[in-house]
Amino acid sequence: MKTQVAIIGGGPSGLLLGQLLHVQGIDAVVLERRTKAHVLKRIRAGVLERGLIDLLAQAQVPTRMETDGYAHDGTVISYDAESFRIDFAEHTGTPVMVYGQTEVTRDLYAARDAAGARTLFEVEDIEIENAALDGDGPVTLHFSEGGNRQRLTCDYVAGCDGYHGVSRQSIPADKRHEFEKVYPFGWLGILSETPPVHHELIYANSERGFALCSMRNDRLSRYYVQAPVDDDSARWSDDAFWDELRRRIPPEYAEALVTGPSIEKGIAPLRSFVCEPMQYGRLFLCGDAAHIVPPTGAKGLNTAASDVHYLFEALKARYLDGDSAALADYSARALARVWKAERFSWWMTSTLHRFPEMSTFDLRMQRAELEFLRTTPSAQASLAQNYVGLPY
Amino acid sequence: MKTQVAIIGGGPSGLLLGQLLHVQGIDAVVLERRTKAHVLKRIRAGVLERGLIDLLAQAQVPTRMETDGYAHDGTVISYDAESFRIDFAEHTGTPVMVYGQTEVTRDLYAARDAAGARTLFEVEDIEIENAALDGDGPVTLHFSEGGNRQRLTCDYVAGCDGYHGVSRQSIPADKRHEFEKVYPFGWLGILSETPPVHHELIYANSERGFALCSMRNDRLSRYYVQAPVDDDSARWSDDAFWDELRRRIPPEYAEALVTGPSIEKGIAPLRSFVCEPMQYGRLFLCGDAAHIVPPTGAKGLNTAASDVHYLFEALKARYLDGDSAALADYSARALARVWKAERFSWWMTSTLHRFPEMSTFDLRMQRAELEFLRTTPSAQASLAQNYVGLPY
Repeated sequence: MKTQVAIIGGGPSGLLLGQLLHVQGIDAVVLERRTKAHVLKRIRAGVLERGLIDLLAQAQVPTRMETDGYAHDGTVISYDAESFRIDFAEHTGTPVMVYGQTEVTRDLYAARDAAGARTLFEVEDIEIENAALDGDGPVTLHFSEGGNRQRLTCDYVAGCDGYHGVSRQSIPADKRHEFEKVYPFGWLGILSETPPVHHELIYANSERGFALCSMRNDRLSRYYVQAPVDDDSARWSDDAFWDELRRRIPPEYAEALVTGPSIEKGIAPLRSFVCEPMQYGRLFLCGDAAHIVPPTGAKGLNTAASDVHYLFEALKARYLDGDSAALADYSARALARVWKAERFSWWMTSTLHRFPEMSTFDLRMQRAELEFLRTTPSAQASLAQNYVGLPY
Repeated sequence: MKTQVAIIGGGPSGLLLGQLLHVQGIDAVVLERRTKAHVLKRIRAGVLERGLIDLLAQAQVPTRMETDGYAHDGTVISYDAESFRIDFAEHTGTPVMVYGQTEVTRDLYAARDAAGARTLFEVEDIEIENAALDGDGPVTLHFSEGGNRQRLTCDYVAGCDGYHGVSRQSIPADKRHEFEKVYPFGWLGILSETPPVHHELIYANSERGFALCSMRNDRLSRYYVQAPVDDDSARWSDDAFWDELRRRIPPEYAEALVTGPSIEKGIAPLRSFVCEPMQYGRLFLCGDAAHIVPPTGAKGLNTAASDVHYLFEALKARYLDGDSAALADYSARALARVWKAERFSWWMTSTLHRFPEMSTFDLRMQRAELEFLRTTPSAQASLAQNYVGLPY
């Protein structure tokens, strides 16, 4: 098999890149380790920046955002007895869109199928010929599909296969540097078929720890509470979860909270991670393959999308104009924005969670930070600009 | 002896409060542990906020600021190879004034002497009658002056006697809570009779640690480099200091640096400290007696001045209008602004220094913070608003 761009990973980043390339007549094959049904079962965050929405339009992907999405013009932040709103529209002129990552993926697969673009599922044991990556010629990928060993020859490889994927591991260890911070807590989250407690998200820093009131749609709520990372979600009854959530959010919301049985419950760890550089010869990393953010601030998918933007623009310049300069510069351009998203996610996480090692002085600094944010328009503008997404 | 307000401490806070009260016809006696000459020998920072300058005018203190002060419309911040300016005037319409704390103190003593107000020097072993502090009647202070034990009876006590003073210690330990952070480094500073390298301050975060280029006037420079807190300044030759400074500041300044013999050299520790509450009955703490900031951002004297403002307004309401409500509320009002200054000083310190315990991820977050500041007008506005001083 031959293609121009081999895309490893059939999640939203890989699919979005594939569609953007397809529209420009650049051939790409997507290799996905799982089945399509499995990919579509993954439930992830769903707060989309304008940039990602524009990319979907540029990729000519019909979405159901207009009917099924929720534009959020702001968000609520609470601490102690204080509760205030950051107005995204006022500070940036732009809302964010609440529309599940699963829905984005579904829309992308529908577009991909309609275009007759090639996606291979249940692809295992991918090997990238390392030596070729750093050379001038084509690159060959070997992989197993339905028990048979296959080959795919391509000009470039886009590594969209997440943190545990083969792509980053294919960069020699002495050619990359990894930066990591593991947070000393996790998020215990539930999904429940109840109306959201508020039409916008509520980020709460309480003395019992962080809580987040989020949503998928107006009948499906997603709630989280900060919990020990080694806690067992099975230990938490639904009632215990709802009680804990109520204690952490402002009283007016606690009273209005509609509860019901959870249809999903789990604990996720929080981590910051960046791999530098994000390219090695003809291999380019996008999204979780190169960087992880803690979920506070919802920058995961959005930062993957900005990588896709830079890589797509670079590949377009290469194939349409014969100009490889942007490809050579991909890592530097992508990382400049990645570090900003990492900073924002780290700051949101640091400001809103209780860390076990915090001194009483640290707690006062955290409160002062939130108090400064509550009372200072320029600080709110900084948050809003980051939340709706910094420009590409 | 009798007075209305006994002011413990003849540094700038105590003197300023004394002059403000004097203008309103409220009697105050200042008790100072040292000689006037000793107080005037202390060399401290000298970046004054508008609020402090306005208070000096309100206290009818003639200053030499107009001829000897330097209005700074901005400051330079550098990191890695980047160097940028924060424009105070653009973001706030207000400059800061570079005018030594020693000069402020000198002006205040001149005004105090001209007014014939009472200052007692070399006052030792002050005791405040604790039991009376919490009561309705007058308060008696006992102290030694020239070997004789004296008494001073007053309505209220203003504790302006610094961190080591008797005032804070006179609040029963179970009636106050102290918050502290000790930074794992100090500032090695020199004073030299050389022209400043730049007409504005330069805050530098280099991989060798923090440096600050500051000044007293156009012939007297003040420079600092971050150093181990247990380092010995005697170990540092002038040449070694200049070499180290040059390595930490942007090349264009390093080349322009005019060096000369130091006329003072020392290492100061960095600390954040707050005592809550700032009052106990008839005793009110101002400035370093209640809180310490690290010097980054020059908030020490300025935050003392905001305390003086709140206490003066409360005493004025009490004596001129017979209204004690503001006195009862003094600590809450003063602390609200104190915590903001603490936050800013902590943030400036955290963002500009290298901490021994920083991971490579932490270093990238610090760089991202500075990069965000360099490229984001709203973040620059937040810094500028804090630097020129938040409103009282």
